[in-house]
Amino acid sequence: MKNIKLVIEYDGTNYNGWQSQKNGLGIEDVIKKGIGKIADENVKLIGSGRTDAGVHALGQVANFFTGSSIPPERFALALNTRLPRDIVIKESSEADPGFHSRFSAKKKTYRYDIYNSRMPSALLFTRACHVPEQLDMDKMKAGAQDLLGTHDFNAFRAQGSYCSSTIRTVHDIRIESKGQVISIYVTGDGFLYNMVRIIAGTLVYVGIGKLKPSDISYILTGRNRVYAGKTMPPHGLYLLEVFY
Amino acid sequence: MKNIKLVIEYDGTNYNGWQSQKNGLGIEDVIKKGIGKIADENVKLIGSGRTDAGVHALGQVANFFTGSSIPPERFALALNTRLPRDIVIKESSEADPGFHSRFSAKKKTYRYDIYNSRMPSALLFTRACHVPEQLDMDKMKAGAQDLLGTHDFNAFRAQGSYCSSTIRTVHDIRIESKGQVISIYVTGDGFLYNMVRIIAGTLVYVGIGKLKPSDISYILTGRNRVYAGKTMPPHGLYLLEVFY
Repeated sequence: MKNIKLVIEYDGTNYNGWQSQKNGLGIEDVIKKGIGKIADENVKLIGSGRTDAGVHALGQVANFFTGSSIPPERFALALNTRLPRDIVIKESSEADPGFHSRFSAKKKTYRYDIYNSRMPSALLFTRACHVPEQLDMDKMKAGAQDLLGTHDFNAFRAQGSYCSSTIRTVHDIRIESKGQVISIYVTGDGFLYNMVRIIAGTLVYVGIGKLKPSDISYILTGRNRVYAGKTMPPHGLYLLEVFY
Repeated sequence: MKNIKLVIEYDGTNYNGWQSQKNGLGIEDVIKKGIGKIADENVKLIGSGRTDAGVHALGQVANFFTGSSIPPERFALALNTRLPRDIVIKESSEADPGFHSRFSAKKKTYRYDIYNSRMPSALLFTRACHVPEQLDMDKMKAGAQDLLGTHDFNAFRAQGSYCSSTIRTVHDIRIESKGQVISIYVTGDGFLYNMVRIIAGTLVYVGIGKLKPSDISYILTGRNRVYAGKTMPPHGLYLLEVFY
């Protein structure tokens, strides 16, 4: 049996998220079905983590074990002929038998895209969250700095979500703009449920002046979800890269 | 009667192009219907020019005459509440009575986007044309220079299309890349049918070595469509701006 690692890009708009669904519209379901067609096997596909409905990926990672004789590097091209065009396998390779997409992951980078303009964008309405109020990027950058490092991110997770520990490390956070799109990049060792979307929503509050940059450290210390900004919608979120 | 000028962004994927269609799926139809709802009038909407099915716009311009008392600047916001999210009025204003979106246009800028990578992009499959062969941008830039200026562009128009003159002036043409997306920007006083898509296809041939940069001037002189490259698909094309 070979352990095959896939790097996957998808437009999450038309799916019910990564995780397998009864209606077959989880991205995992669609890829498993594709593998079934080319390798004639019902494999167990392990993703690096779930993404919610509407969330996109440029570098999701998944792995599966197969007895197929298809060369590992060929899986990408072969699978792409069986997948809808909004799901693309960017590369496939053989991994060590011990490689596990989720447990072996060391870091992940997400990007949250905001379309900052009075009017919404027709081309980006499923790709970036429209924020009509003008955002002060300098303030957002200042506030973001306080999220760097190891903290208890309890204030930055969906209420009611389960996790054994709310301590996480943010290795890098940066904010860039191109035209009217403001992108927030966050790299961390792991993320609580909705953490990036709540970080983005909190930095938007800083950007419009509803919170001060210095409030970020109080929100962290307060450990209460109600202090942070709102959860931004899923369609601005991209899983960019998983590091091993 | 006031003459209202609209600047329009749209994702052309789900429409049959700009022009009015019997099935009502021309972008013109959808906007006219929106105006009918807010101004209670059946207006004649004049676009700066047609775009084909699948072609996008960031700055299409259209105008119409109305007796409505809605302030000209308010039409944009009011109309956007009545339009699907893949069509957005970026701005509305009152124009001189003599202003005509098509006849008053002095120049237009189009962009053609190419996704240059071995694998296609899941996020851009309706937004950029996938070219798997590696493109030599320096050669493309060199070839593009010979399109600058006033020429007979007969070789760069769809065979069978009608036009009284095939002389056009290209004021500016430039090629830029960002990541794996290569964008060809073309500004001209007017464009023959499919002209930008054929220019893009010809420069792709130069980029993969099927044509030399120096072939461009021979193709222009030869005036024969068969010498130029293929017509690139509509979904990589964007109408960026109309100048008056």
